[in-house]
Amino acid sequence: MTAPAAPDFYAVIPAGGIGSRLWPLSRAVEPKFLYDLAGTGHSLLVDTWNRLEPLAGNNIVVVCGVAHKKTVTRELPALAQTNLVLEPSPKDSTAAIALAAAIIVRRNPDAIIGSFAADHVITDDRRFGKAVREAIATARDGYIVTIGIRPTEAATAFGYIEIGESLAVDGAPHAHRAVTFTEKPKSDVATEYLDGDRHLWNAGMFIAKASVLLDELRTNRPDVAEPIDAIAEAWDTHERDDVVAAQWKRIPTVAIDYAIAEPAAEHDRLAVIPGEFSWDDIGDFAALARLHNRGRSNVLATLGHNSRVLNEGSSGLVVSESNRLIAVVGVKDIVIVDTEDALLVTNAANAQRVKSIVESIRRTGSDDVL
Amino acid sequence: MTAPAAPDFYAVIPAGGIGSRLWPLSRAVEPKFLYDLAGTGHSLLVDTWNRLEPLAGNNIVVVCGVAHKKTVTRELPALAQTNLVLEPSPKDSTAAIALAAAIIVRRNPDAIIGSFAADHVITDDRRFGKAVREAIATARDGYIVTIGIRPTEAATAFGYIEIGESLAVDGAPHAHRAVTFTEKPKSDVATEYLDGDRHLWNAGMFIAKASVLLDELRTNRPDVAEPIDAIAEAWDTHERDDVVAAQWKRIPTVAIDYAIAEPAAEHDRLAVIPGEFSWDDIGDFAALARLHNRGRSNVLATLGHNSRVLNEGSSGLVVSESNRLIAVVGVKDIVIVDTEDALLVTNAANAQRVKSIVESIRRTGSDDVL
Repeated sequence: MTAPAAPDFYAVIPAGGIGSRLWPLSRAVEPKFLYDLAGTGHSLLVDTWNRLEPLAGNNIVVVCGVAHKKTVTRELPALAQTNLVLEPSPKDSTAAIALAAAIIVRRNPDAIIGSFAADHVITDDRRFGKAVREAIATARDGYIVTIGIRPTEAATAFGYIEIGESLAVDGAPHAHRAVTFTEKPKSDVATEYLDGDRHLWNAGMFIAKASVLLDELRTNRPDVAEPIDAIAEAWDTHERDDVVAAQWKRIPTVAIDYAIAEPAAEHDRLAVIPGEFSWDDIGDFAALARLHNRGRSNVLATLGHNSRVLNEGSSGLVVSESNRLIAVVGVKDIVIVDTEDALLVTNAANAQRVKSIVESIRRTGSDDVL
Repeated sequence: MTAPAAPDFYAVIPAGGIGSRLWPLSRAVEPKFLYDLAGTGHSLLVDTWNRLEPLAGNNIVVVCGVAHKKTVTRELPALAQTNLVLEPSPKDSTAAIALAAAIIVRRNPDAIIGSFAADHVITDDRRFGKAVREAIATARDGYIVTIGIRPTEAATAFGYIEIGESLAVDGAPHAHRAVTFTEKPKSDVATEYLDGDRHLWNAGMFIAKASVLLDELRTNRPDVAEPIDAIAEAWDTHERDDVVAAQWKRIPTVAIDYAIAEPAAEHDRLAVIPGEFSWDDIGDFAALARLHNRGRSNVLATLGHNSRVLNEGSSGLVVSESNRLIAVVGVKDIVIVDTEDALLVTNAANAQRVKSIVESIRRTGSDDVL
């Protein structure tokens, strides 16, 4: 066990989203975070764990659906049983993070938690650690802190955080006030943000005292906070299952951006640390292709065990989860995802539309491939 | 049984080529002629048989590889055992057609044979029959006759036949001298041909007295004619197998265009009947897409039993020989061929390059998918 960044620091990994824009690779039973999308030899979940362990030691709490208990514990043998929080059904990020915070704060009232998605790719762990340490220092001052990523292009697939004045925080020279949160912008607005140099990508990372985070939630969304507190109160008792059964279904489904971060920005309680590392949420196959082609537009990247790909003058991405031989002849910027029971062919420009195909599949009753 | 076009007319169907530009649909064990590529509900071989039966009655001889004996006899229950000619190995069209002619002429010295590939698509059987009847009349006058197709575009994937003066043949008002044979031309030459209105597509159809065809071969290519005659002489005797075993390997591999048609044109013995029906040899997936999309550029055609294809704004062709769900999102002019053990993704512009992929596969030792 490594010495943690701060003895009271707890990392939370919500391992929730299915990543339906990555269908047919990512599925309900085998979601995105279980795949080695970064090409490290480990799943994204294990990469996330390995990135957080030097900062949090064994204080890492994973929140996942009951259906993924077996695979998550198999992937993370060092995860303590008491640090695995199982959700009976998906309720979006507020429920996952707030429940973890509410459980942790009852075990350690001084806890500072940091929440980091299980399925993002970060390529510079040292700079990531530096940003988290500044965020912890800023959280100690009572702020809810996010780490914003310096944009490298006018991306329209990410949300943006506007940076305000510098905050004078000990141990956090780069802490700034976070002024606004903006949803995925239109292309012209994204270009403005990129040029203006006052906006960072929202990477969904939140660091705060558990107590501060929960107080913010209780103020803004008592309807969420109340069942969460009830469940957390019973969590480390023999009443857990009964209370979860009674309360979980009452929790509204809402993203932490709306329930906590945006109101905190309005209350001047939100801070941001610029993260000077490369980050991607690999939200679709265009992002996955970008990651593996590293900007080389004439390359056909290949992902998957035992892939057999024959390429003649093609570029883009092939994900091979079958043993089929795949021949790709003269097609540019293509995305091919081949699995045992489903095949997707699209291109980078249409990668976001994959979600609507998944919805069509659900509507037409072909759920066997979801 | 239908009354034939002429009592001495014999149709020959060489069922030879693998069609490697149609890989991975067309394979060594399951070649192109066994597929329902025209969407008629029958294989191309059965379509060819059905087109010829009204003209030749039961006088239809099929030439195929020994490996395809079982599937060919299954497809053609009306084919007489004595009319099935099995090749020990592929030797191109001259060997196949000349052997059939040499066998037939020994059974009927006055036989007129007409050779028609097993894997072409013709959509107007009535006009086809009309052209064949004119070709038979012309063959009776001692000509080697081909049926040329009126070009509908400046195709570079077909050979061309230049039409000469009209021949005064009884019962064949459209018979002309065939002046030259040209291999697949460059695009500018093809455009010239199309505009000049004196060139027809070479559809590989040859009609001639069997004796005339064989004499032409004996004159031009005695090295081919000699082992063919030896085999034919023994064919309907108990010595067939021994003679085939000794002679077959001696036969040079050469296309009938070079061994017979071109020399016949030089000797003023080649005639051509313009075929006023639509024809395609479906030489590659671009041709197959064209056939099924009928010129509508925004359509995604789907071929294959039990195909499950979800399309969002794509065009081109999907051939589905697996039970996989195939989702195609926003890709234009795409060609997807999905089989149990191999997947091809290309587009119309690159369809001719598929052959080189097959050669790569052979070189890299992945013969399991050929």
